[in-house]
Amino acid sequence: MKFNTVIVRFGGEIGIKGAWTRKTYEKLLLRNVKNTLKHHNVPYENIIYKRGRIYVKTMEASKAASTLTKVFGVSSTSPAVETISAMESIIDKSLELADETLTNGSSFAVRCRRTGKHPYSSMDVCRIVGKQILTKFKNRNINVNLKNPDVTVNIEVRDEKAYVFKETFEGVDGFPLGSQPKIVALLSGGMDSAVACWLVMKRGCPVIPLHFDVTPFTDKRTIQKAQDVTRALFEWAVGFPRKLYIVPHGENLRIFQEEAPKKFTCILCKRLMYRIAERIAEKERAEGIVTGESIGEQASQTLQNLKVLNEAIVNYPIHRPILGFNKTETEEIAEKIGVLEIATRKSMGCKAAPKKPATKAKLEVVKEVERKLPIERMVEESFRAARIVEI
Amino acid sequence: MKFNTVIVRFGGEIGIKGAWTRKTYEKLLLRNVKNTLKHHNVPYENIIYKRGRIYVKTMEASKAASTLTKVFGVSSTSPAVETISAMESIIDKSLELADETLTNGSSFAVRCRRTGKHPYSSMDVCRIVGKQILTKFKNRNINVNLKNPDVTVNIEVRDEKAYVFKETFEGVDGFPLGSQPKIVALLSGGMDSAVACWLVMKRGCPVIPLHFDVTPFTDKRTIQKAQDVTRALFEWAVGFPRKLYIVPHGENLRIFQEEAPKKFTCILCKRLMYRIAERIAEKERAEGIVTGESIGEQASQTLQNLKVLNEAIVNYPIHRPILGFNKTETEEIAEKIGVLEIATRKSMGCKAAPKKPATKAKLEVVKEVERKLPIERMVEESFRAARIVEI
Repeated sequence: MKFNTVIVRFGGEIGIKGAWTRKTYEKLLLRNVKNTLKHHNVPYENIIYKRGRIYVKTMEASKAASTLTKVFGVSSTSPAVETISAMESIIDKSLELADETLTNGSSFAVRCRRTGKHPYSSMDVCRIVGKQILTKFKNRNINVNLKNPDVTVNIEVRDEKAYVFKETFEGVDGFPLGSQPKIVALLSGGMDSAVACWLVMKRGCPVIPLHFDVTPFTDKRTIQKAQDVTRALFEWAVGFPRKLYIVPHGENLRIFQEEAPKKFTCILCKRLMYRIAERIAEKERAEGIVTGESIGEQASQTLQNLKVLNEAIVNYPIHRPILGFNKTETEEIAEKIGVLEIATRKSMGCKAAPKKPATKAKLEVVKEVERKLPIERMVEESFRAARIVEI
Repeated sequence: MKFNTVIVRFGGEIGIKGAWTRKTYEKLLLRNVKNTLKHHNVPYENIIYKRGRIYVKTMEASKAASTLTKVFGVSSTSPAVETISAMESIIDKSLELADETLTNGSSFAVRCRRTGKHPYSSMDVCRIVGKQILTKFKNRNINVNLKNPDVTVNIEVRDEKAYVFKETFEGVDGFPLGSQPKIVALLSGGMDSAVACWLVMKRGCPVIPLHFDVTPFTDKRTIQKAQDVTRALFEWAVGFPRKLYIVPHGENLRIFQEEAPKKFTCILCKRLMYRIAERIAEKERAEGIVTGESIGEQASQTLQNLKVLNEAIVNYPIHRPILGFNKTETEEIAEKIGVLEIATRKSMGCKAAPKKPATKAKLEVVKEVERKLPIERMVEESFRAARIVEI
């Protein structure tokens, strides 16, 4: 059966917005859908927006349906065949679908949802189509199983049109990318920061990742991972800027190593990263900074340390979407979004990290240490030396 | 079969900590386990900590096992029968378990894990016990199914002891409560703030909730919900302080309503809440403030607005663990942790919320508005009038 349409459904949170916001979000979603199809070379004849759904008319419906699950704001998609809402047409297409999917001994169910005015109810459709299928494919020993069928024949009737389909692909819901302002992200190449980025993207924020290059305290594999993770994340951001900032940070680390107590290296490093990120956020007109910190995951990520880190900047909030995640929860998302393999690739850990980092840093002590260091100059020079890589 | 022991397993993130931290965490976990059993009136004879596991000796093993899944840091529990690690004893207990659980036509599997020195391997145990079961219960038409058995006979051999069990209850992992410092939380009585609290508790932070009482802009049901949600959360925090701050906030809202542009009411309200929370955090020696904001969920929770909110305080970080969650994801956790029903109980929404709240507030404008208001006095008076309710 040649599917000719994809039904694209929206996330529930879009539906409950006020009329104006909803319209804006749906337009944005439509644009992101078009860009994503184009990016993946999926040809389509037409895209129709109607009553809170998008219908993509395409002869590559299966590919389109699976591709579009990577558009934020999409709750699910189904490759379908479109027909008119006359009962005979619905029966015809349903029988065709059943013929292709029911094998010997299969159980099946017919499900129907309907909006608009029709001479039949949804229950009528299920009953009539079900009976026709049973009669026509009697010799295949098929049976009805409403609870756990092998095959489901789904029918959606929308006004003068009807759609028949068997499969639904899950999307990730959320809000369309671009419905919120830009956000700058610290991106290490590991799993945590990648998942943190993705989570705020899911809520509508385009992300501008910054990678702090700490060679010679790590090797070149790390920078490559950061680029590859960014590329994987940008698969979820088709049509948005694809740039990654790479900020030289090795010299800064060398200064910390040589001129400050070793136990503070990680805290000083992170505070400086925040300050540089703040400068880039200003330049990019972003509205926040996102990081992959999770309470207690690293010795440097105690609640006390996070407080000391936060104090480094005042003009931008630090957003930490995986703050309350267990490692396994982060891993699960990393796998789902396609970054796990890249992020867990071998690379050299940061050699500047001390064996015994401070876990309960005192702000006053850290500030005292910083007073003896050329912090402002370090921020300025790193900011100026940052280069942008197109991914 | 009378289970006499509960095997308590720890989360993987505890296991990878350095020796000193791991020891501290495991001690804390042990204390929390004891307190939780006591709180739920589960009698036990002894608790043994050994090689990264806790064994609770109790004649109410099933109740204890299910109760202890609510202790953060526990990854899973199993009611078990303890015996000596001699093969005959293992066979005896396994046959006893099989006798009780295998019905006619059941499929089964035997699984074994082993640490210590023994004259047999894990494979030997599976093979021998499996064979014995097959022979003894031949007349029940049982069969071996390693992939998807109806019944699993689990055997854990640890040095001179062996444990036989059928079931494993999932815990929530994370870190033992108290392994991180206290955190102050804004708690509305709704679902979002409750889930946000729980997530930071899961990472080890004891929470001190603050509820802002906005009567007459809401009704008494809201304050009741806040207390009930707190009670449900404290089920996860046995042995820790059970206090809820209730801060009078209605008069503040009245001032905002009457003396500031309506569209800023929510932003002014939240900025004031943060400031009052900061005062309570100081008093309580907490190390941060946690809130239930999620990007884009409310009109007031745009990325721009969060930035404006953050600026209200500088001494404490605002942690937003559900920042990147969809509503359905928050709901799922709310249900799992036992707050969904309470949090979705009917109550009057805040009547001070404007129809068209500012979604892209400008900081300078908000600060200008605040300059004309007695903000400092409002903070001081609310802080002083805050009362503590024991939950």
